[in-house]
Amino acid sequence: MSETRYYVGLDVGGTTMKAGVVDDEGRPLGPAVSMNTDAHLGQDHGLEVMCETIRRAIQAANLTTDQIVAIGVATPGPMDLEAGLILDSPNLPHWFNVPVRDHISRTFDHKPTAFQNDANAATYGEFWAGAGRKARSMVMFTLGTGVGGGIIIGDTLVEGNHSHGGELGHIKIEMTNPRLCGCGRYGCLEAYASGTGVVATAREVLFRCGSYNSSLGRFGINPHERLTARMVFEAAKQGDALAQEVVERTAYYLAIGASNLMHTIDPDMVVYGGGMIRAGDILLDRIRWYVVQVSFPVPAEKTEIRYAELGEDAGFIGAAGCARLMLRTLPQ
Amino acid sequence: MSETRYYVGLDVGGTTMKAGVVDDEGRPLGPAVSMNTDAHLGQDHGLEVMCETIRRAIQAANLTTDQIVAIGVATPGPMDLEAGLILDSPNLPHWFNVPVRDHISRTFDHKPTAFQNDANAATYGEFWAGAGRKARSMVMFTLGTGVGGGIIIGDTLVEGNHSHGGELGHIKIEMTNPRLCGCGRYGCLEAYASGTGVVATAREVLFRCGSYNSSLGRFGINPHERLTARMVFEAAKQGDALAQEVVERTAYYLAIGASNLMHTIDPDMVVYGGGMIRAGDILLDRIRWYVVQVSFPVPAEKTEIRYAELGEDAGFIGAAGCARLMLRTLPQ
Repeated sequence: MSETRYYVGLDVGGTTMKAGVVDDEGRPLGPAVSMNTDAHLGQDHGLEVMCETIRRAIQAANLTTDQIVAIGVATPGPMDLEAGLILDSPNLPHWFNVPVRDHISRTFDHKPTAFQNDANAATYGEFWAGAGRKARSMVMFTLGTGVGGGIIIGDTLVEGNHSHGGELGHIKIEMTNPRLCGCGRYGCLEAYASGTGVVATAREVLFRCGSYNSSLGRFGINPHERLTARMVFEAAKQGDALAQEVVERTAYYLAIGASNLMHTIDPDMVVYGGGMIRAGDILLDRIRWYVVQVSFPVPAEKTEIRYAELGEDAGFIGAAGCARLMLRTLPQ
Repeated sequence: MSETRYYVGLDVGGTTMKAGVVDDEGRPLGPAVSMNTDAHLGQDHGLEVMCETIRRAIQAANLTTDQIVAIGVATPGPMDLEAGLILDSPNLPHWFNVPVRDHISRTFDHKPTAFQNDANAATYGEFWAGAGRKARSMVMFTLGTGVGGGIIIGDTLVEGNHSHGGELGHIKIEMTNPRLCGCGRYGCLEAYASGTGVVATAREVLFRCGSYNSSLGRFGINPHERLTARMVFEAAKQGDALAQEVVERTAYYLAIGASNLMHTIDPDMVVYGGGMIRAGDILLDRIRWYVVQVSFPVPAEKTEIRYAELGEDAGFIGAAGCARLMLRTLPQ
């Protein structure tokens, strides 16, 4: 009989959810499975879809349920990690106090089931099997519409005492002239360093610096014309000076985020993930430059700054990794 | 024979150093002993004074060296914690790569000797035997001329991978109009929330808002007249509206610091220590108010915000606590 142990990880998002089986090194077996969350159909339906996605992932790996030793589930916050509940996530409207962990564990023969915040799980995935697999400690910023985060010190996720560890999009970096953040508060990193933040920076620069020289000119005055972060990064790569100024500012904001964590946690490695890293080296090179300018010399020299490697698989791989970790700390 | 174990802690500062013996609960035995550091006499002299201060503390506790099970030493940074060295501290001019840990251990019969950053040690002291003794995790800001910091998660100090964990005075909170910090960089919390920061805020407010109504008026224009944070807090207590505005802004800055850590570490408790907390409730009440405004609801409601309790003894008590902790994790 094989010694290999298999784990299934599920990453629940507001639109879709994704599950896959991985082995003891975090390598996926067979293809991952995606299903629509259909959050508007309610939380009971949502729980059923979660279980079905897990079942299909096990089938896709050519395994049976009894070959799975543990399950890991990652969902959007806010949540109560200790109780295994989703509280009232803005990404899952009208879901309240959803008992995710217990429902899934019960459905699958009371298998050990780990429950984690989605950004934390993605961070753990990169730490275990991605960009951070050689790091002893790691901080990750996930750059999408918002900014998620996760902190790992010595193979342990910093969950916090009230399940709010690693909410790195909501550290404040500006007081004098703060932008309104999606969370309703002011001056958060997310308002500057997310995709939404890039667009806000672009509109500011276009409005203040004049737009007639820029390929993005038409977005300067008309707020109804849709501008995306991807368009800004594309224009910068084409040599548009104004778009390059936006990239420059974004890199600076992201470096402030990194530096604040380097002066707090002082990790081996800072990783950026999420859709925005498709911007590539044009962004990463400038982040690295600013990190050195704004940080203390020793961490500035020694902290590795990298992009994530697992893409959208980080969530389910990390969720499975959390299941594996939980199993190791359970009494035998 | 008694089962009680005794530890000696030494807290080295730029001007004086202080040592004392404590028991297994962090209670001091006999009086603490202070000696001048006389940093200008060089690092060899400094090492001798450290050993002498420790000897006198043991005598003051009516003990002999062989009744001490371990020694803890805290010094200003930057340092290499793993190697046991002070690197090149601005508070100890012309000291370079000082082998503190090994020198002290050798001098005292190769006793186990713990080595820690001074702000970290003070944080551990409060966690072990002061304001945080009931907390599971804790962040402390030490408010003096500068801002020091420390982070404890589950009885462990977050030292960081490059000995830069908990450098909380140097998280950036302002980009648009940043103040120059003592570290030579811009926008650090220390430039706003330290004693120096309070004076800078007061001069700004005096200059911008007019000073004829304030008891601090004479400091508004003349930069040569010495203004201190204590004078500002005293004036605020006497009802000076302008000084109260300075307290208000200071509380806001300190709350931003707390909130940033609540969204990162999410601790049980945030503690403020250092000379500035002599300001009393006039400051603490406003910090608590702002923390609730700028933080997520759950940590805002549940995180305890307190002042430190051990005063200037936190450093040597915490250093002794680090020695005790080290002993517990050493192979028997």
